[in-house]
Amino acid sequence: MTYCLAIALEEGLVFCSDSRTNAGPDRVSKYSKMHRFSVPYERSMVILTAGNLATSQAVIAQIQRDLEEDTEVNIFNARYVSDVADYIGEISLKEQQKYAKKGGPNAGFNASATFILGGQIKGHAPELYMIYPEGNHITASDLYPYLQIGETKYGKPILDRIVRSDTPVETAMRCALVSVDSTMRSNATVGPPLECLFYRKDSLLPHEEYCILEEGHPYLADLRQSWDDNIRLAFDNLPSLSAVFEADPSPDQ
Amino acid sequence: MTYCLAIALEEGLVFCSDSRTNAGPDRVSKYSKMHRFSVPYERSMVILTAGNLATSQAVIAQIQRDLEEDTEVNIFNARYVSDVADYIGEISLKEQQKYAKKGGPNAGFNASATFILGGQIKGHAPELYMIYPEGNHITASDLYPYLQIGETKYGKPILDRIVRSDTPVETAMRCALVSVDSTMRSNATVGPPLECLFYRKDSLLPHEEYCILEEGHPYLADLRQSWDDNIRLAFDNLPSLSAVFEADPSPDQ
Repeated sequence: MTYCLAIALEEGLVFCSDSRTNAGPDRVSKYSKMHRFSVPYERSMVILTAGNLATSQAVIAQIQRDLEEDTEVNIFNARYVSDVADYIGEISLKEQQKYAKKGGPNAGFNASATFILGGQIKGHAPELYMIYPEGNHITASDLYPYLQIGETKYGKPILDRIVRSDTPVETAMRCALVSVDSTMRSNATVGPPLECLFYRKDSLLPHEEYCILEEGHPYLADLRQSWDDNIRLAFDNLPSLSAVFEADPSPDQ
Repeated sequence: MTYCLAIALEEGLVFCSDSRTNAGPDRVSKYSKMHRFSVPYERSMVILTAGNLATSQAVIAQIQRDLEEDTEVNIFNARYVSDVADYIGEISLKEQQKYAKKGGPNAGFNASATFILGGQIKGHAPELYMIYPEGNHITASDLYPYLQIGETKYGKPILDRIVRSDTPVETAMRCALVSVDSTMRSNATVGPPLECLFYRKDSLLPHEEYCILEEGHPYLADLRQSWDDNIRLAFDNLPSLSAVFEADPSPDQ
């Protein structure tokens, strides 16, 4: 499994991903799921991947091959980020169809993969997309500024509570890391290292901030301990239930 | 959908449930999913239900009918709570099989339901079980003191961080309410009123504390506001990422 997310802030784009892949409990590996493509001062894009590892590797390899061969449509000559989203959707669908032909030997085999694509092309605003296995895509919005792929549920409540499009960068990055860390804690198939990147709007550079946190990295240990302590404190400061019990006498049965 | 959970504490058992049911977005209703059965000073049990509403209603109705008819095995004459778990599993399976006969007109129809059963019978320790649609069951443990049914993922991280078997009752009840409230926020098919109950070990009474919190109940509003504020504070107090960015200079690409 995998958990990746991206947040569209007024100041730019935040990306965060785990690095665990598994094909059964005895085939657990580490692969980066964060792929960066940029032409400094012209365009900068980040792709996050989830789902079938063979499919997502094939898609990233095809993107790189198209760049080397300078094909008619590639990630460095597309006019809009949404065109890149279409392009990734097409490659992904084509790749999946190779292995999942109806009635073929792989019938029922799930080669699907999902992608998050975010970035900016000179002259346009930054954009953020989630690309479904079917090849179509949705974008983030001001009201719903984040997108998630993979094992998304455990890490969603904290995003819902904290993240808005005007959230400061540092808060959004911490929130992304806590969201991934909470997911690692609840699901063994999501794991370190964690990667976190911030792209500043209109910089057109690969990133303004980037970190990779291996298991045992002092910051990750600090973050966990601090979050644990702070959450317990947050609990201790919640309103007491005793008033409720007094106000609503219990019905007997 | 539904979200219910129960926690086995050293001091007793905590139960919490939402009340929303839906059969499609235009068939949303409210039903209590917390059912109490007790013989004061002899036994006390609580059943939480999730899954197909017709199945869970039929199971509760059968339990009540067996009590009225004083059948050979019922919830008031079983010797162990685990026997009651077996009994519920059998009724549930029988009920599901009525509607899901292989190759029948309902083939593929999902009538499955899941239950949490907790309680105590005089002379024995309190017990807590989750009963699967297949009729078998698991119990909570000291290392893993809570059980969840329905839409379980959103509310799990907070339980993982806070709840131990020696957690004080009030903290555990607040944590259960926050867990359900977080789930309501992230999934529209989980909704109020919330019910929360505490059974004190060896009391053999229906409950020591019970509350039902309708949407708009002042405590629920207070809890949400306070939790939102406290979580934001918890965030503000997390270690700054700036040290990480300085310590690990970003690789360029």
